[in-house]
Amino acid sequence: MSEKERLNTLTLLSKNEKNYFDSPEDAALEVFDNLYVGRDYKITFNCPEFTALCPVTGQPDFGKITITYIADEKCVESKSLKMYLFAFRNHNSFHEEVVNRILEDIVAVCDPREITVYGEFMPRGGISLDIEASHKKNS
Amino acid sequence: MSEKERLNTLTLLSKNEKNYFDSPEDAALEVFDNLYVGRDYKITFNCPEFTALCPVTGQPDFGKITITYIADEKCVESKSLKMYLFAFRNHNSFHEEVVNRILEDIVAVCDPREITVYGEFMPRGGISLDIEASHKKNS
Amino acid sequence: MSEKERLNTLTLLSKNEKNYFDSPEDAALEVFDNLYVGRDYKITFNCPEFTALCPVTGQPDFGKITITYIADEKCVESKSLKMYLFAFRNHNSFHEEVVNRILEDIVAVCDPREITVYGEFMPRGGISLDIEASHKKNS
Amino acid sequence: MSEKERLNTLTLLSKNEKNYFDSPEDAALEVFDNLYVGRDYKITFNCPEFTALCPVTGQPDFGKITITYIADEKCVESKSLKMYLFAFRNHNSFHEEVVNRILEDIVAVCDPREITVYGEFMPRGGISLDIEASHKKNS
Amino acid sequence: MSEKERLNTLTLLSKNEKNYFDSPEDAALEVFDNLYVGRDYKITFNCPEFTALCPVTGQPDFGKITITYIADEKCVESKSLKMYLFAFRNHNSFHEEVVNRILEDIVAVCDPREITVYGEFMPRGGISLDIEASHKKNS
Amino acid sequence: MSEKERLNTLTLLSKNEKNYFDSPEDAALEVFDNLYVGRDYKITFNCPEFTALCPVTGQPDFGKITITYIADEKCVESKSLKMYLFAFRNHNSFHEEVVNRILEDIVAVCDPREITVYGEFMPRGGISLDIEASHKKNS
Amino acid sequence: MSEKERLNTLTLLSKNEKNYFDSPEDAALEVFDNLYVGRDYKITFNCPEFTALCPVTGQPDFGKITITYIADEKCVESKSLKMYLFAFRNHNSFHEEVVNRILEDIVAVCDPREITVYGEFMPRGGISLDIEASHKKNS
Amino acid sequence: MSEKERLNTLTLLSKNEKNYFDSPEDAALEVFDNLYVGRDYKITFNCPEFTALCPVTGQPDFGKITITYIADEKCVESKSLKMYLFAFRNHNSFHEEVVNRILEDIVAVCDPREITVYGEFMPRGGISLDIEASHKKNS
Amino acid sequence: MSEKERLNTLTLLSKNEKNYFDSPEDAALEVFDNLYVGRDYKITFNCPEFTALCPVTGQPDFGKITITYIADEKCVESKSLKMYLFAFRNHNSFHEEVVNRILEDIVAVCDPREITVYGEFMPRGGISLDIEASHKKNS
Amino acid sequence: MSEKERLNTLTLLSKNEKNYFDSPEDAALEVFDNLYVGRDYKITFNCPEFTALCPVTGQPDFGKITITYIADEKCVESKSLKMYLFAFRNHNSFHEEVVNRILEDIVAVCDPREITVYGEFMPRGGISLDIEASHKKNS
Ligand SMILES: [Ca+2]
Ligand SMILES: [Ca+2]
Ligand SMILES: [Ca+2]
Ligand SMILES: [Ca+2]
Ligand SMILES: [Ca+2]
Ligand SMILES: [Ca+2]
Ligand SMILES: [Ca+2]
Ligand SMILES: [Ca+2]
Ligand SMILES: [Ca+2]
Ligand SMILES: [Ca+2]
Ligand SMILES: [Ca+2]
Ligand SMILES: [Ca+2]
Ligand SMILES: [Ca+2]
Ligand SMILES: [Ca+2]
Ligand SMILES: [Ca+2]
Ligand SMILES: [Ca+2]
Repeated sequence: MSEKERLNTLTLLSKNEKNYFDSPEDAALEVFDNLYVGRDYKITFNCPEFTALCPVTGQPDFGKITITYIADEKCVESKSLKMYLFAFRNHNSFHEEVVNRILEDIVAVCDPREITVYGEFMPRGGISLDIEASHKKNS
Repeated sequence: MSEKERLNTLTLLSKNEKNYFDSPEDAALEVFDNLYVGRDYKITFNCPEFTALCPVTGQPDFGKITITYIADEKCVESKSLKMYLFAFRNHNSFHEEVVNRILEDIVAVCDPREITVYGEFMPRGGISLDIEASHKKNS
Repeated sequence: MSEKERLNTLTLLSKNEKNYFDSPEDAALEVFDNLYVGRDYKITFNCPEFTALCPVTGQPDFGKITITYIADEKCVESKSLKMYLFAFRNHNSFHEEVVNRILEDIVAVCDPREITVYGEFMPRGGISLDIEASHKKNS
Repeated sequence: MSEKERLNTLTLLSKNEKNYFDSPEDAALEVFDNLYVGRDYKITFNCPEFTALCPVTGQPDFGKITITYIADEKCVESKSLKMYLFAFRNHNSFHEEVVNRILEDIVAVCDPREITVYGEFMPRGGISLDIEASHKKNS
Repeated sequence: MSEKERLNTLTLLSKNEKNYFDSPEDAALEVFDNLYVGRDYKITFNCPEFTALCPVTGQPDFGKITITYIADEKCVESKSLKMYLFAFRNHNSFHEEVVNRILEDIVAVCDPREITVYGEFMPRGGISLDIEASHKKNS
Repeated sequence: MSEKERLNTLTLLSKNEKNYFDSPEDAALEVFDNLYVGRDYKITFNCPEFTALCPVTGQPDFGKITITYIADEKCVESKSLKMYLFAFRNHNSFHEEVVNRILEDIVAVCDPREITVYGEFMPRGGISLDIEASHKKNS
Repeated sequence: MSEKERLNTLTLLSKNEKNYFDSPEDAALEVFDNLYVGRDYKITFNCPEFTALCPVTGQPDFGKITITYIADEKCVESKSLKMYLFAFRNHNSFHEEVVNRILEDIVAVCDPREITVYGEFMPRGGISLDIEASHKKNS
Repeated sequence: MSEKERLNTLTLLSKNEKNYFDSPEDAALEVFDNLYVGRDYKITFNCPEFTALCPVTGQPDFGKITITYIADEKCVESKSLKMYLFAFRNHNSFHEEVVNRILEDIVAVCDPREITVYGEFMPRGGISLDIEASHKKNS
Repeated sequence: MSEKERLNTLTLLSKNEKNYFDSPEDAALEVFDNLYVGRDYKITFNCPEFTALCPVTGQPDFGKITITYIADEKCVESKSLKMYLFAFRNHNSFHEEVVNRILEDIVAVCDPREITVYGEFMPRGGISLDIEASHKKNS
Repeated sequence: MSEKERLNTLTLLSKNEKNYFDSPEDAALEVFDNLYVGRDYKITFNCPEFTALCPVTGQPDFGKITITYIADEKCVESKSLKMYLFAFRNHNSFHEEVVNRILEDIVAVCDPREITVYGEFMPRGGISLDIEASHKKNS
């Protein structure tokens, strides 16, 4: 069916129907084989559309997450990463937890040679936070 | 109680506890008296942290909303505007609907002399949309 | 099937398998009903990833297309616009033709109140071209 | 014949006539002698007009490729590099493959002392990728 | 006495000694004769270091004030304007009041042909306000 | 009580009522447990709304303070940091003192592994100052 | 013959062999039929690599020329425009003459409905010049 | 004599030897015939290196002067303009006077059809001034 | 006396009355005790309003001077630095001399642990110069 | 003779009269004694107005040349450098040759301690080149 027919005739999602996970635990990060495992090359995911909830106020926080890593045997699949980051949407978390957790979840699933996760959050009360966490394999 | 005690001893909000409305219908915009009603002066709200859900995919969309208006007897109270915009978070809406709706809701609550609502949304599939809607009182 | 299984087991598209139309004539622009037809509001599509072929050299040209219009009864559906713009990929066209043609094709399919199409193309031989074409309904 | 006569009288390329290669295998990179082989000097090619097809969707992807290298006996000839990069146009490739492959193809043809290839790709689904791969000769 | 001696020997201001007015009412704006009264010329004061207190929270707000005017017989003296703006430092005022008040105070003291006061305030809760008020003499 | 009722009926703060401390000594910095104490990760506070008084003139100075640190057992709580920085508002201090003092106060309260405090102040007399101070634990 | 063979075997141009005209009079601007003559659409040529000689010092001057016009029956062919602009390379001309002359030469060859030529030249002695000249057909 | 010999053998200017005028009255602006007097075209002089002395403190002020005009029979010669602007170096003048005076001096010497002089001065005490004055011939 | 009275009644400085020194030798740099002598912290003076005379032409040169240093027992007092830099106004000096001299004069007066002086000068004849000189104490 | 008389009465240079050298061999770089030979300090020439001819097409190429060096006994005199760079105007040279040659010519004339020459050239065919070459004295 063409998109046009779908728009005109299809029941659109009801006003509160969402297509993302409730929590990061539910959104499994997926991996695929690193075809260039003989080389150390850097992959960066730029994710400027990050949002979660503040544990103190219960109100939304927004930020930009940048993930740079050197894969070992496995690479992170980017559509699963997108779904994983969406899953913070209704999840209460401090900025320090968001960044460290993303780091740990990616290390757990693909065991990279090196990884840095950098979060830059929007200001509240005139102050904004950036958090940067790194991990490197013991060689 | 000081913030410190609260953090250490208070039960933090549970992992999915939110403090915003489910839908814009629930989040009443509030007004106060315009103290300078004798003058036409422009007020702009810059709201770069806007997010709603796409009605087709059910996945998050992000954008920047800019509201410029000349008040008549009533001005929009900004904390209620913040809560109102938060209420789109789990609400499915096309960009055209978001912008036109915000315009209509503000006109309904404070009947301004003039108003423009401008939404600039993040790209999907290589294309990004901007929507701009205006309203002017018949004088 | 989850994305992971698909990646690991699915036959990937062969090295030259494309999912776009050969020519703009084949890629029908689609429309939907303008829900705010009582109001003149501006819609802008920002399309920075445009490419076609030069009719003289047969080599790729690149540019940014910006379409701003005020809809009448019909709005352009953005996924069909994406497919329509992809269809210039292997199509030879001068910059002047690209811009004027996009204008005429959109006017033909949705008869807007006003429309401007603006193309900004990458330099060749030290010179770059911008083309801007507009159309307004006779009221 | 002057350009003018050609434009007015010459049969222009038909609407789908292209002047680039179907695949990178067909577009041989060419080299010339490094006249300054006694010195380590850096050459950077900035290639902001890169496009290939996504292996999953078959739809175009766009990016900017930056190649920095220190030549040994041979330098890459830039017109052949232009034709080589054009040859990805209808070729399905993941971003990781594009960058690593360009690196390997250049190393194969001119055996540089050092080389880095850096690709920055346009966002899809709110996330954009950058890939950076390097190679250094064993001295 | 030279600055050096003063620094070494002079009793510095005690830790809370200020040299500005407590309130705008106390800080008289001063004027001088417009030497070019035969011409309409524009004067702009750019004041990026503005701060007052929020009437709701009692906490500081910050902003940038831009004043553009065409003088009639009198021009505003800039040192007195500096002192006048400092006087908002411990004064509680909404942004709408700050901008309209500055406009009215300058009109009162120098009766300009035209004046616009533009305030751009730092975000609170993810939203920032700009206020623009103008006045023109009846000619 | 809703915000609306409060605005209309509540006695607003009187014109000089402030909600911040008179001096940094009064505004205790607060800490909480570092949940990721096993890792060295960087936290940056960006504080662009800093103001204090000049000890020579008694007039306001403005600047941007950036604090980057690697926590040990304790992290600085950001709301207390906000109140602490507000407390310089009516406090006379040279730029060198502001930066070194903030460094020492944070070291005293949370004993970080590393910390840098960077202040960039607005120009006076055509010259602006930046001050950068660091501290690292003896390991 | 492939480019490679040409580079290796072909006699390169001798050290002072040029491929451009000595003077603008020698470089004829060429035109082609405007296919969209029923519409007023704007064409802009951005030419940032302009250079001529200063009539006073005989030394090079550099600038950026921007030509915006609405064609009538004829459009300017861009390769001939490139050659025409190259022809100022060893030609002595004041900035005012360059801009007005380009305007007149284009008007003479294609009689546009409207045209503006804008030149922005690099500073000499701390001062830089911009020149803007326009022409509109009598309708 | 070549520059080299001059540098090595020539007596350099003594440490306070200047080559500019003491006052604007001494530095005559010079004109030449407008070769395009039949057309209204705009000439802009961008002069970012302007400095004079403050009449209150006797200390230097700095600014950027932009002069845009449409010449009638005469154009301003730019080297004489350079010398004229240098002549403010040791001259005490308020910003309002600088801008209006430059306007009047240029009008006096070349009687242009239109002219605007725009001065943007560096901040003092946290506030910076811009002044814009215009003149148009009575037609 | 208030500023207003002074402006209206006080004899303003005559048209060439200056309040700065004729030569850097006359403008003594002043110092004060470094209160944080136990720590190495960096102080940067940003001085964008620097001007001197060219020894060849006798005409003004302009530049931006940036001084970064780590003090030992003494810090440079910034008002004296301002007066010292003003003193180059009518002093003929090559850019290399300006930068090296400022370095040497500051080292002479406060014997810092480290210092870098960086000058960026405005272009003349299409070329601009930057000079960077450093000094470090023998430890 | 004053500039005015010269302009009105002097025969201007004929339309193709140039005041620069035909080739870099003809334009001798000149040096003067380094007055600060006891110190290693960096001098940078920023030369954004560079142009030469392409050896393949005979058409102009444009670029920005940046030369940073630490002088030994001799410094490069900047007016001779300006004339030397002008001398590439009608000289055919590849970008790699331009940069390496400038490096070698400066080393030959002043034997610096260190030098880097960096050329950034304008795009042709969608690709632009940067070349960076360095030299350091054997110590
Ligand atoms: Ca928070
Ligand atoms: Ca940041
Ligand atoms: Ca959408
Ligand atoms: Ca936009
Ligand atoms: Ca453009
Ligand atoms: Ca992809
Ligand atoms: Ca990037
Ligand atoms: Ca703003
Ligand atoms: Ca700074
Ligand atoms: Ca000139
Ligand atoms: Ca300009
Ligand atoms: Ca002043
Ligand atoms: Ca300005
Ligand atoms: Ca000089
Ligand atoms: Ca620079
Ligand atoms: Ca570059």
